[in-house]
Amino acid sequence: MTPASVAELSRALGSSAVLTAEEDLREYRDPYSYAGWDDATPAAVAMPGSVDEVRAVVRWANEHRVPLWTVSQGRNLAYGGPAPRVRGSVLVSLRRMDRVLDVNEELAYALVEPGVRFFDLYEHVRGRGLWASLPVLGWGSVVGNALEHGWGYTPNGDHASNACGMEVVLATGEVLRTGMGALPGSRSWQAHKRGFGPSSDGLFMQSNFGIVTKMGVWLMPQPERYVACLVTTPRQEDLETLVDVLRPLLLDRTIPNHPLLGPAIGAPGWSLRFALYGRASVVDAQQEIVSTAFSVIPGAELATRAYAGDAVAEDARDADPFHRFQAGIPGMEALEVVKMRAGEHGGLLDFSPVGALSGREAAQLCDLVRSLVERHGFDYTPGVIVTPRSLLHITPLVFDTTDEEQVRRAFDAYEALVPELARAGYGLYRAHLRFMDLVADTYDWGDHAQRRFNQRLKDALDPNGILSPGKQGIWPRSMR
Amino acid sequence: MTPASVAELSRALGSSAVLTAEEDLREYRDPYSYAGWDDATPAAVAMPGSVDEVRAVVRWANEHRVPLWTVSQGRNLAYGGPAPRVRGSVLVSLRRMDRVLDVNEELAYALVEPGVRFFDLYEHVRGRGLWASLPVLGWGSVVGNALEHGWGYTPNGDHASNACGMEVVLATGEVLRTGMGALPGSRSWQAHKRGFGPSSDGLFMQSNFGIVTKMGVWLMPQPERYVACLVTTPRQEDLETLVDVLRPLLLDRTIPNHPLLGPAIGAPGWSLRFALYGRASVVDAQQEIVSTAFSVIPGAELATRAYAGDAVAEDARDADPFHRFQAGIPGMEALEVVKMRAGEHGGLLDFSPVGALSGREAAQLCDLVRSLVERHGFDYTPGVIVTPRSLLHITPLVFDTTDEEQVRRAFDAYEALVPELARAGYGLYRAHLRFMDLVADTYDWGDHAQRRFNQRLKDALDPNGILSPGKQGIWPRSMR
Repeated sequence: MTPASVAELSRALGSSAVLTAEEDLREYRDPYSYAGWDDATPAAVAMPGSVDEVRAVVRWANEHRVPLWTVSQGRNLAYGGPAPRVRGSVLVSLRRMDRVLDVNEELAYALVEPGVRFFDLYEHVRGRGLWASLPVLGWGSVVGNALEHGWGYTPNGDHASNACGMEVVLATGEVLRTGMGALPGSRSWQAHKRGFGPSSDGLFMQSNFGIVTKMGVWLMPQPERYVACLVTTPRQEDLETLVDVLRPLLLDRTIPNHPLLGPAIGAPGWSLRFALYGRASVVDAQQEIVSTAFSVIPGAELATRAYAGDAVAEDARDADPFHRFQAGIPGMEALEVVKMRAGEHGGLLDFSPVGALSGREAAQLCDLVRSLVERHGFDYTPGVIVTPRSLLHITPLVFDTTDEEQVRRAFDAYEALVPELARAGYGLYRAHLRFMDLVADTYDWGDHAQRRFNQRLKDALDPNGILSPGKQGIWPRSMR
Repeated sequence: MTPASVAELSRALGSSAVLTAEEDLREYRDPYSYAGWDDATPAAVAMPGSVDEVRAVVRWANEHRVPLWTVSQGRNLAYGGPAPRVRGSVLVSLRRMDRVLDVNEELAYALVEPGVRFFDLYEHVRGRGLWASLPVLGWGSVVGNALEHGWGYTPNGDHASNACGMEVVLATGEVLRTGMGALPGSRSWQAHKRGFGPSSDGLFMQSNFGIVTKMGVWLMPQPERYVACLVTTPRQEDLETLVDVLRPLLLDRTIPNHPLLGPAIGAPGWSLRFALYGRASVVDAQQEIVSTAFSVIPGAELATRAYAGDAVAEDARDADPFHRFQAGIPGMEALEVVKMRAGEHGGLLDFSPVGALSGREAAQLCDLVRSLVERHGFDYTPGVIVTPRSLLHITPLVFDTTDEEQVRRAFDAYEALVPELARAGYGLYRAHLRFMDLVADTYDWGDHAQRRFNQRLKDALDPNGILSPGKQGIWPRSMR
């Protein structure tokens, strides 16, 4: 990248939309890496403000053969933040594309740009009878989170599955609308999944095949009643039974959201958070079923708090923050937890293998991760996201980012854990930047059939290899 | 295709697995076309019995540059049946690959080959506490139906969304496992959607990018109580209110399955079929809500019939067949309806535009299709599948296949309807063989961005263009 090419980019986007000063670029390194390390940083940051400006960046990158690295908000902190995989990439930050383009109250969906944060979407839907699902930190991008297969805590918490319809700028600069969006004038782009022919939405998630510039998000109607539930059990060995009691309640939709399971605080047992939503009479019946179900675990306790759907923002103000998250009210409390555990400069890596939702397998997976994590000198404090048939066993490795030895130990542990877990049949659903290749290596069925398939698509869609090379272990031909 | 190449194929699969006799091939024409027309028929039928034999067929086709046309059961009757798009294709019938490879009672899923029919899966899961979703005809392929974006009537009725994990033979002969199946030894292939990196499952639906040889199917646990519901309204103009009353009940999951809406039989109003499933106390509360909701429509009646989940097969034996379909019990009654309407040789085309689920739009779409269909001389008898945010307005054009003039009129009507509906913003979710190009033409946003994207993938994945050329309007380079 030459000064002349940067000047050309600045002319296209406006000079305030292209950052090259060292102090600006430093903000785009991995925030949870050791500051003294020579990590990959971007050579410049481009902040397009429109689809046409994204196209301009892509055309510029093709012309000058400069690798781009796209982030929406760049808040993917536990997995590398906004940092690029390849040194010298131009970081494309989509923060300026922050419009909520549509909120349809009747059909309960929104259409958003990638710069829209969970905080922003909340402000747009509050008081309108709609709740948006969100993860524990509200500053992230709604689009970015879904594209990374992120999860939240309302019944629409499988964010990737609750995306409906995308607009994507391809590496060629062409613009694609997926699903019903391919039909001009369609009114069901955000209402109906899949259009005519193959669906490409899944291709643009955890990938480097395009830059998503618009995405539909399904919302839930504000329920008449919402009950936040917390089950605690007294013993570590309760896990197997707890999971086996929970699973049928998820499969038959008694519990409609994705529970969060973790070690109980200050006790050897487990805690399980979930919620009920709906008409009061239905929720009452469900609560009775839930209460009876968990009572088979000796010593288990179920704490519940019921809210009127239209009063949660007020009434849950001083409650457990999770009561707000499950009601679509964003917060930043989780960041404080890291600081409490590891100081002002605390950081973490998330290690996130997936298992099937049987009690036996959950216990096996937890025991395995616990022993490995503790062997590497870290506390075992997982947050396990539960789906009706699987669990995402997310274990933060927490450290002080100013302590080089601690940071190195966390990265070393991660590197050691990936192949050990893969040998036991557990793959990661998401990975830190540094370990994308390592994790992709474990998905090697059929002599790396998936890698070859992804590479073939990459070469066809992005012949110059400009879009996020190395993301999820997918490299363009020139860099393989 | 030479006699020598056919002999080679016969040697690879066994001579009984390759059909070339004219009377055998005749069975693979479009069953609902006029018999006297010179429709495209296959040059031969290959019936591989294993993944390796599918690979052998694909390698053979590449070597001899013969187009293949793959069907699972070939029962896609209203859209062309097993007939190929291109004359002289070798039809690949997967009927012999008919194994149910796994039924997981704990996690409520099955893993099936493409030759498994809804009848077969039902036999495998009955008495084991699991219900499989199915469409009105039980003889179709479970895999084939999901791949064509088909719908059924349990809460897992969005068959494409309830597929989890695929194995696919690519045009190169390579075998790909999607999602968690890319990790050797993973136990969550059928339990967790999406693996690491982009998801390609959607690419293999309504497409010609691969041959699906295994697919996971999510099942539902047998409920304690199941209530079949039928709402009838007295007036044609009730539609708008009916839809607006129904939508919130779907969005808040009071009604968990996909209702079927249609003109009431023998009356000017509408009928709406749906069901409630779950624990008795919850279903009772839901039934009360539903009953109150629809009572706002003057003259509307709600008929319900409650079943114990474990006794439906017995107790619904003489009930409305739909009571069985909503409980996952397959049947063939719908075929009789066509014969009742158009005689022993009755046939039909399904015309299937998608709209958003608002009362106003539903009324507009129904009025538009009604006027067009009636203008072409057909009765308007739609079956509208309703999702929480959209509707699939499926209108059969019914005719006597032995009456050339009737058949021609149906095809002419279809051809006229596609562009008229597209101009109003309604695209088809699926199309008859003859109109795949026409329908693909209507999905032309961004100067046919979708077509160019699909063609790029086609050329990368299937350079010789052997897999189902023309399917969904996607043609390989050599045939464009």
